[in-house]
Amino acid sequence: MSRAAPQPEQPPGSVLLREIREQPEALSRLLESSGEYAAVARMIRARGIDLVRLVGHGSSDNAASYGVYAFGLLPGLTALRDSISLSVYYGADADLRGSCVIGLSQSGQTPDVVEYVERARGRGAFTIALTNEADSPLAETADAVLPLAAGFEEAIAATKTYTNQVAALALLAGYAADRGDSLVDGINEVTELMADFLPGVERRLSEVAVALAFVGRMFVIGRGPEFATVREISLKLLETCRVAAAPLTATDLAHGPIAALDGLFPVWTIAPDDPLLPAVRDAAARARAAGATLLVSGTGAASIPDGDYYIPVPKPSLSVLAPLVSVVPGQVLAWALAQAKGLDPDRPHGLTKVTLAP
Amino acid sequence: MSRAAPQPEQPPGSVLLREIREQPEALSRLLESSGEYAAVARMIRARGIDLVRLVGHGSSDNAASYGVYAFGLLPGLTALRDSISLSVYYGADADLRGSCVIGLSQSGQTPDVVEYVERARGRGAFTIALTNEADSPLAETADAVLPLAAGFEEAIAATKTYTNQVAALALLAGYAADRGDSLVDGINEVTELMADFLPGVERRLSEVAVALAFVGRMFVIGRGPEFATVREISLKLLETCRVAAAPLTATDLAHGPIAALDGLFPVWTIAPDDPLLPAVRDAAARARAAGATLLVSGTGAASIPDGDYYIPVPKPSLSVLAPLVSVVPGQVLAWALAQAKGLDPDRPHGLTKVTLAP
Repeated sequence: MSRAAPQPEQPPGSVLLREIREQPEALSRLLESSGEYAAVARMIRARGIDLVRLVGHGSSDNAASYGVYAFGLLPGLTALRDSISLSVYYGADADLRGSCVIGLSQSGQTPDVVEYVERARGRGAFTIALTNEADSPLAETADAVLPLAAGFEEAIAATKTYTNQVAALALLAGYAADRGDSLVDGINEVTELMADFLPGVERRLSEVAVALAFVGRMFVIGRGPEFATVREISLKLLETCRVAAAPLTATDLAHGPIAALDGLFPVWTIAPDDPLLPAVRDAAARARAAGATLLVSGTGAASIPDGDYYIPVPKPSLSVLAPLVSVVPGQVLAWALAQAKGLDPDRPHGLTKVTLAP
Repeated sequence: MSRAAPQPEQPPGSVLLREIREQPEALSRLLESSGEYAAVARMIRARGIDLVRLVGHGSSDNAASYGVYAFGLLPGLTALRDSISLSVYYGADADLRGSCVIGLSQSGQTPDVVEYVERARGRGAFTIALTNEADSPLAETADAVLPLAAGFEEAIAATKTYTNQVAALALLAGYAADRGDSLVDGINEVTELMADFLPGVERRLSEVAVALAFVGRMFVIGRGPEFATVREISLKLLETCRVAAAPLTATDLAHGPIAALDGLFPVWTIAPDDPLLPAVRDAAARARAAGATLLVSGTGAASIPDGDYYIPVPKPSLSVLAPLVSVVPGQVLAWALAQAKGLDPDRPHGLTKVTLAP
């Protein structure tokens, strides 16, 4: 999967920005495989699966955070981000009959994800590979393969593979709930919302980035399905902008970390337009009271008072799909802030595309 | 549960330090209730429980991270930190027969933990309250109550309640695996290791703290059972020292965040003397190569080369109990670094002991 680094004549960040902009198209490509998602969901139902185990690292693990909510809200199944260590390094011997395993890896090469899936299959789980690469070790190991269909990703910082993973988990959970058609319509709608939304966000965040160029640390807060967004935005800022961005649930902020805040420590609030809004609004108010600079985005941004910067996000008809749109400002800020800080987000310090380390 | 703030004549941090030192005694108190743990474990076995759902916020959620490994390694049960939001805010309707729920709250008052437990009981789960307060709403709501037995905790930053939660989960998992006596012996041994270890750690970290007084951000890395330690140490530094400390699995460090490192961004590595050591050693080497200042602790510290500061930790006979000892340097550094920075860890900015926010 390793290819040559982008050619020097390309301006810094151009690869990342191109892939951010490509996301609506990548989502449309995913929908071309919806029949395969429907078929795998039928297998999940036929086998009486009652537990979904999600495994991945980095952005894939962030998408897995979303999967917990997609399966919980749509078919009402318990899903968890399972411990790879317990199985692969400690040899713990849980009975996995009745479990479905979804291994998430863009490249299909992540060694301990492949090994986890192999062991889980041996212990009776129904195993699914969700990957961009149908010929990869992960795909060869699993019972079923679902195409991520994001197309080749050149940027080191994942964008379109993350949103396609999120959409893929929503689609599979939707079919498992016998609501697949509604999810297909919903993802189609998101491709339009995203395409309309992107140009304005690029302009707006290029301005905001200049004001944030001094920032060395940040909390990103949210809760529920948007906690995946919180984690993914933090990771983008860490890997491209050298910002120590830490993801926190809105509730955990009040359980200690709020004591670290001051005016040089911004808090980015992802406000959902759903039953968790009051909890997130309360956390944002506490951050403001502690003197933090407040960035506000998400579909419920308009309900958060006293923000310093607002990046409202259009709300999809299916609110479970909101994280597909609300991650976009984080991706765009990673691109814009890197430029404001004089960094090249296409060449982050010390990173390679496929991580083969243990 | 609210009491008067510590009297001004007490030196800064004296309440926190007293409770750090009290931990061996608090663990011994927990063991006086081992019969109750054995009885609840018998109920777990009699009911054929195959899934353990752990819920809590802040330090309690960090202890839950440990519970995932205690139940996975000892009785071989799958345990997860369950989503409170799915149940309490979104009304997701999973079938919880076959599940055991453990609600963790020092005060027994955390509102959404109480509500989660109430709903889970209504949906067929066997519910357990693990709390310091036998008369609390949480204790009244659950099927069974396990005493945390930590004694009244005055400091806002939890220490002895965290270590007693970790030990309580190990004890319950041990009895569920029919190995309760071995866990009792192991925890008894830890009380001695901890008491012997503490004075030297206080001296050593008072020196290290002076060198770290400039630090505004830090990664704390580890994996497996010690990931609970990683999360808890990060939280202590956040709430008492205004350090933006972010917990990362050793593997996730390489998936992006490593790009943020430089010489002013220390990485604290918790090295386990167990099968995960090579993965953690690799992550530490990458952090070092990226120019980070490296703090090394944990029972496997001696196997990590090129550290700037070493705080080796004695290894208990039962390696599953190592996190009880390896969290202590983090608690002590929180105390020492706060003093080096001129902060009072007994009065962190904006925090109260019991968080009643949503």
